[in-house]
Amino acid sequence: MKISVFRKEHFNAAHRLHNPRWSDEKNARVFGKCNNPNYHGHNYELIVQVTGEVDPETGYLIDMKVLSDLIKEHVTEKFDHKNLSLDVEEFQDLNPSAENIAIVIWRILRQLLEDKYELKVKLYETERNFVEFPA
Amino acid sequence: MKISVFRKEHFNAAHRLHNPRWSDEKNARVFGKCNNPNYHGHNYELIVQVTGEVDPETGYLIDMKVLSDLIKEHVTEKFDHKNLSLDVEEFQDLNPSAENIAIVIWRILRQLLEDKYELKVKLYETERNFVEFPA
Amino acid sequence: MKISVFRKEHFNAAHRLHNPRWSDEKNARVFGKCNNPNYHGHNYELIVQVTGEVDPETGYLIDMKVLSDLIKEHVTEKFDHKNLSLDVEEFQDLNPSAENIAIVIWRILRQLLEDKYELKVKLYETERNFVEFPA
Amino acid sequence: MKISVFRKEHFNAAHRLHNPRWSDEKNARVFGKCNNPNYHGHNYELIVQVTGEVDPETGYLIDMKVLSDLIKEHVTEKFDHKNLSLDVEEFQDLNPSAENIAIVIWRILRQLLEDKYELKVKLYETERNFVEFPA
Amino acid sequence: MKISVFRKEHFNAAHRLHNPRWSDEKNARVFGKCNNPNYHGHNYELIVQVTGEVDPETGYLIDMKVLSDLIKEHVTEKFDHKNLSLDVEEFQDLNPSAENIAIVIWRILRQLLEDKYELKVKLYETERNFVEFPA
Amino acid sequence: MKISVFRKEHFNAAHRLHNPRWSDEKNARVFGKCNNPNYHGHNYELIVQVTGEVDPETGYLIDMKVLSDLIKEHVTEKFDHKNLSLDVEEFQDLNPSAENIAIVIWRILRQLLEDKYELKVKLYETERNFVEFPA
Repeated sequence: MKISVFRKEHFNAAHRLHNPRWSDEKNARVFGKCNNPNYHGHNYELIVQVTGEVDPETGYLIDMKVLSDLIKEHVTEKFDHKNLSLDVEEFQDLNPSAENIAIVIWRILRQLLEDKYELKVKLYETERNFVEFPA
Repeated sequence: MKISVFRKEHFNAAHRLHNPRWSDEKNARVFGKCNNPNYHGHNYELIVQVTGEVDPETGYLIDMKVLSDLIKEHVTEKFDHKNLSLDVEEFQDLNPSAENIAIVIWRILRQLLEDKYELKVKLYETERNFVEFPA
Repeated sequence: MKISVFRKEHFNAAHRLHNPRWSDEKNARVFGKCNNPNYHGHNYELIVQVTGEVDPETGYLIDMKVLSDLIKEHVTEKFDHKNLSLDVEEFQDLNPSAENIAIVIWRILRQLLEDKYELKVKLYETERNFVEFPA
Repeated sequence: MKISVFRKEHFNAAHRLHNPRWSDEKNARVFGKCNNPNYHGHNYELIVQVTGEVDPETGYLIDMKVLSDLIKEHVTEKFDHKNLSLDVEEFQDLNPSAENIAIVIWRILRQLLEDKYELKVKLYETERNFVEFPA
Repeated sequence: MKISVFRKEHFNAAHRLHNPRWSDEKNARVFGKCNNPNYHGHNYELIVQVTGEVDPETGYLIDMKVLSDLIKEHVTEKFDHKNLSLDVEEFQDLNPSAENIAIVIWRILRQLLEDKYELKVKLYETERNFVEFPA
Repeated sequence: MKISVFRKEHFNAAHRLHNPRWSDEKNARVFGKCNNPNYHGHNYELIVQVTGEVDPETGYLIDMKVLSDLIKEHVTEKFDHKNLSLDVEEFQDLNPSAENIAIVIWRILRQLLEDKYELKVKLYETERNFVEFPA
C-alpha cells in the first residue's frame, strides 16, 4: 500500500483576474472586485502531496527537506512578494485564478519529481477558498 | 485532468441526538450527553467541494461567489441560529447526527448544481469530530 | 517580574439570548437570530490565564494538570452538552451572553484559586466573536 | 471591573512599502522584497477590541452585529480587494506598513465609537507577523 | 454511498531518526538535525478516518466516543509523553519517521476495527509536515 | 501612543521535567508523565512581542526581518531539534518547564534589543498549554 507525505509552504502575492479578450464591462461583471485594475493580494498557503512507497532504509517516502527546498527554489522564490499578473512568466497569457495557479505549480513540480511519485497540490487563496489539482 | 474547488461556510445550531422509537433508557445509554432533552449546540464548519473541468475563458471551475451564495441561501440561512431538531424540516424524522446533517446538505446542494460537477461535503461538528460525504 | 500561564478548555452548549422583562418584539429586535425561542448553540473555547510568581522548586507557576482538573470539575462539566438557559443555575436569572458567561466562569474560578494568583478568562463564542474578563 | 469584546474581520489587499523621499537603492535596501514596484499582497486579519462596562439590560458590552457592521462599512469595504498604495486615500502620503495600517484603522474607528469605550486593534499581515495599537 | 468520520487525537513524544546499519556519518548526512543522539520531540496530531455505511437506527457510522476511547487506549496512551525510539516496542527495530509511525498506528487500529470499516490515518509531525496512510 | 509588533517562530525539542534535589518518587508524583527519564517532546511556538514608537521614515517599529533573524540566530538555532535537558546550557541547572523556557528566551533577547524597546515572550508548549513573560 502507498503512503502520501505533505509539505506546506506559503507565499504572498498580488494579482488581478482579467480576460484581455473581453470588454472592461464583461471583466468587471464576471470577476467583480477581483478585477480591480490596481490589483489586490493574498497570503497563499500551498500544500504539496507526494505519494509512493516508503524506502525501508530511511523510513522516508521522500526527504521532506529535499521536497521543501525544491518547492522553495522553483515555486515560492518565483511567486513570493510578486505580482503574479505582471512579474510571473506563466501568467502573462493565463488568468491567475486559484485554479490556474495550482495547475501551474503542479506542472512545475511534476517535471522535477521522479516518475515513481504521484503528485497533487492544494492551494489556499484564503482560509475559505481553496483548490486541489488534480482532483 | 479534473480540479476541485472548496468553499468553507459556517453555522451555529442546537440539536439533540434521539431515536423516538427507543426507550429513554436506551437513548441515554447510546447517545450519552448528546441526548440531553434540553439540547446542546455547536459551531458547524462546512466545506463544500466541487469537482470538474476549468473553464478556459475564466480560469474558474465555478464562480466561488455563486457557490458561496448558493450555500448561504439553501443551507446556512436554513440552519444558522436554529435548533436542528425542532426548526429544520429535514430533521423532523431524522436524527441530526453529523453524518445525517452532511447527507442532508449534500442532497440539497446536489439538486442545485449542474450534473457536470461532482460534489462532496465535509462537516466539522467540533475541531476533533468531523465527517465527509460521500467518502 | 510575574509570569502568566494559560490553559485552554472547551465545551459545547445551547443558549438563547432573552430579557424576560422585555416584550417579545423588543427581544426579537435587540437579540435578532440569537433570540430564537428554540435555542441555538456554540462550541465555546475557554482560555484561563493565571498570573503570579514561578515556584523555584518546580519551575511551575501552577500545576497545569491541577488547573485543568479544576476547570473541568467546576466549569466544563457543568456547562458541556447543556442548555445554558435551562440547565445551568447561574443563568436562570442572567442572560447567557458571552460577556455574562465569562464573568460567571471568572467568579467560579476566583473562589477556587489562592489569593496570590491573578485571574483572567477569555471566552470564544465563535472564531470571530470573543470576550475577556476582566479587561 | 471592565470587560473586553473582540470582533475579527478580514480583507485582502495589495501594497508596496516605499518612501518617496528616498532613492530607489535605499528603498530596495530597507524594504527588500516588500519594495517590489509591481506590488505584492496579503490576507489581512483584523481583530477589533472594545473595552468598557456590561449593560445589565442586554448582557452586552456592545452589540457585536453593530460593531461588525461598523468595521465592514468604514474599514473592510474601503480596504478589501484594493491596492492600499494606490486606491486608499489614507496611504497616499503614508507608507502602508502593518504598523501604519493598524494606526489608520484605529483612527477611523476611534471617531465612530462612543467615548465610554476603549479601543485597540490587532492586525495580522501574515500568521507570523502582526501588530497591536495602542500597545 | 459510503461516508467517512474523522476523529482527531494528539500525543507528545521524543524520537531520533537513525538507521543502526549505517555509520554515524551517513546517519548524520541523511537525517541531519533529526539524528541528534539526545533526541528531539514533537506534538503529534493524529486524525483517524473510518469509512462505511451509516446505521439508520443511530445515524452514526461508528460511535465517536467508542472510536476515541479505542485510539486513546491503544495508541495515545502508549505513545504520549514517551520516547518513541526507546520506550515503544514497535520502534525498537523500525525508524520512527512520520511515515513509519502512521503505518504502525494504522496496523494497531486495523486489528481492532470490524472488517466492514475502511481505515486511514493522517499524522501531523508539525503543522508543515504530515503524512497519510494508506494513500 | 506606543505600538507592539509580534513575530512568531517555532522549534521542536525534547525535554524532561525533573528536580535533581528530590527523590525519584517525589519527581514522579509532582511531574507525572513529564518526568519520563527517557524524555518526551513538543513543537514549541514562540511569539516575541516588541513595543515602542513607530519610526516615521520607515513606518516600522522594528524591521521584522531583523527581529526574525535575531530570534533564529540566538534562540531557535540553539533550541531546535535539541534535548533541552541535555543539550542546552541554560537548562543544565534549571528545570525546562514552559515557564523557565520563556524566561530564558526573554533574558537572551532582552540583552540583544535596544533599551528603547519593551519585550514580552509568549511560548506555546501545546495548543492548550502556554505561558507569557513578563505578565
